[in-house]
Amino acid sequence: MVDLTLNTPPAMLADRFNTLRYDEDDHAVIVLDRRKYPFQTEFVTLHTVEAVAQAIEDMTVQGGPPLAYVAGLGFAMAVREATGTTAQQIAHLEQTAQRLLATRPTADDLNHLIPAALETATAALNADEDAFRQTLDYVNNEIQRGNDVSRLCGIHAARLVADGDRILTHCIAGAALCWMLWAAKHDGKQVTLIGCETRPYFQGARLTAACAKEMDIDFKLITDAMPAHLMSTGRIDKFICAADRITMDGHITNKIGTLQHAIAAHHFGKPFYVLGYDGPDPNTATGADIPIEERNPDEIFYARGEDGVVRTAIHAISGYYPAFDITPPHLISAIVTNRGIFAPNAIGDYFTR
Amino acid sequence: MVDLTLNTPPAMLADRFNTLRYDEDDHAVIVLDRRKYPFQTEFVTLHTVEAVAQAIEDMTVQGGPPLAYVAGLGFAMAVREATGTTAQQIAHLEQTAQRLLATRPTADDLNHLIPAALETATAALNADEDAFRQTLDYVNNEIQRGNDVSRLCGIHAARLVADGDRILTHCIAGAALCWMLWAAKHDGKQVTLIGCETRPYFQGARLTAACAKEMDIDFKLITDAMPAHLMSTGRIDKFICAADRITMDGHITNKIGTLQHAIAAHHFGKPFYVLGYDGPDPNTATGADIPIEERNPDEIFYARGEDGVVRTAIHAISGYYPAFDITPPHLISAIVTNRGIFAPNAIGDYFTR
Repeated sequence: MVDLTLNTPPAMLADRFNTLRYDEDDHAVIVLDRRKYPFQTEFVTLHTVEAVAQAIEDMTVQGGPPLAYVAGLGFAMAVREATGTTAQQIAHLEQTAQRLLATRPTADDLNHLIPAALETATAALNADEDAFRQTLDYVNNEIQRGNDVSRLCGIHAARLVADGDRILTHCIAGAALCWMLWAAKHDGKQVTLIGCETRPYFQGARLTAACAKEMDIDFKLITDAMPAHLMSTGRIDKFICAADRITMDGHITNKIGTLQHAIAAHHFGKPFYVLGYDGPDPNTATGADIPIEERNPDEIFYARGEDGVVRTAIHAISGYYPAFDITPPHLISAIVTNRGIFAPNAIGDYFTR
Repeated sequence: MVDLTLNTPPAMLADRFNTLRYDEDDHAVIVLDRRKYPFQTEFVTLHTVEAVAQAIEDMTVQGGPPLAYVAGLGFAMAVREATGTTAQQIAHLEQTAQRLLATRPTADDLNHLIPAALETATAALNADEDAFRQTLDYVNNEIQRGNDVSRLCGIHAARLVADGDRILTHCIAGAALCWMLWAAKHDGKQVTLIGCETRPYFQGARLTAACAKEMDIDFKLITDAMPAHLMSTGRIDKFICAADRITMDGHITNKIGTLQHAIAAHHFGKPFYVLGYDGPDPNTATGADIPIEERNPDEIFYARGEDGVVRTAIHAISGYYPAFDITPPHLISAIVTNRGIFAPNAIGDYFTR
């Protein structure tokens, strides 16, 4: 079923090592600025944990797995720089972990990677081993594992794609979306990807559009308010996006707007598939347990474009910017992971398959 | 029921004469540039029918009634300038009417006003009367009638507003929305207006926000992808917007996105009220009879802000920009007109009430 001869999709974002890495010469974390790509392909160099944390908070790096990897690389940097007794170093690293965990609350990847990195470093320090090397190796292995998960998830998802499909997506569904489109193309299926621009950061108009273009996949941009109309006029066949966290009972959280499109898909009888990467979060039972990040409403008063930023809202008003929403399992047709395709209510089976 | 002592709401857009008029000294049509207001309060001066038609096509003036009034004032200008025999003048005016009718297809106001203006001019020319004066008077009377309709529609709609309501709106619902909010405020009802920014032209972030601010109504801006999430978390009580056309069987068309919010409101059991101004179009039986304008997709590749325009989408991609969508009557709780509140399926009763 899985075609092992398939090459990595020719899209910058399909391989996480293209966008984030640890520089061992300079001892810095190098990250693609996702707020500007592909208008500008700019990498920022982060020399402190605080700079790493702020790059996550200010959306320089975005998406559950990428931001967790960057946090992990920043944590490895902290391990190298820690001084004092073993106990002092461990205490400092525990504080560092707290700072990184506090950056963004909704996606669960951070909650798995940082405690594991802390545990790796602590064990190495207690054993008087090379804690930096072991921590960095752990994080780099996680990045490679994430690439492998994306590949398998995307290839499984390609089974749900039919020749001629017009697929709605929202925000950027990451490496698994690239793999899905690439595998479908490899199988001779021609698809059109219909991407919501995704306010306020336009990830759809930039990142998703760039991925499709690099892979020569037909792409059509719409605004975030158009999916229901396109479904009502027969112009969308299915809705496929990613998830920042999946609960054990099949709720998913993803970029704000996903719920709206899922409700419309349900209303018009169109399937909604979630690219679920490495499955549910065993620590999150149901939707009510997901903390939804509320960002500074100032961010929705502006639009960043190719040549700069413009203010699009009048001054001296208030706004509200929840960054994610929660879609319940009854609105989801299937969740696709690296271990195959699951019914949302049975996503707990992920751990036994 | 209708409070006749209520003053005009202190919002620029609540009175159409504030934003469009015929200048009898210069013989030009003066129009507020709605693409820039309120960042810049710029009036453009249009000296030719072609300039009027283009100002409608390029969104300098927007909204079914306002653009119809501007077309009508442009038509009056053409009546004044027409030369030759009566037959030649009438033939020229018929062509002028066709040019103006071809500007934007979806809202029905243009389809009523321009043929009536042509009829007025033709009758005057045939009777050797002052055709310009009669045509201009007709159009100015229509603008005044529109103001009166907005006032009554808004005051009726205020009955559907409860103290403490958090009301979602989309795009700009015009003078009737101002009247509704003003009448509710006059009755001591405190409401919060939650406005979708409304891509690509940000009418919500500029025009609706400005109206609310001028009237000192609590306002909160969100992006177009957020309403379903706010409904799911109990932050929206009802959805109220305008309609560019209402069919005899209770379908409405309005700015793209309305359908999506109506489906979400239905899903979460929130009422959806339509500000229906002067009722249905007797010439449009049902939704399938409404022509949905598809605009140049280039328009969704940019964002215009306070200080200029930025390109927000990558280059060399395609897009799709239907400017309106159609919401069926079963998703609508009530349609409010100058003649009162109607069940959507009974909106045809408008003509006998």
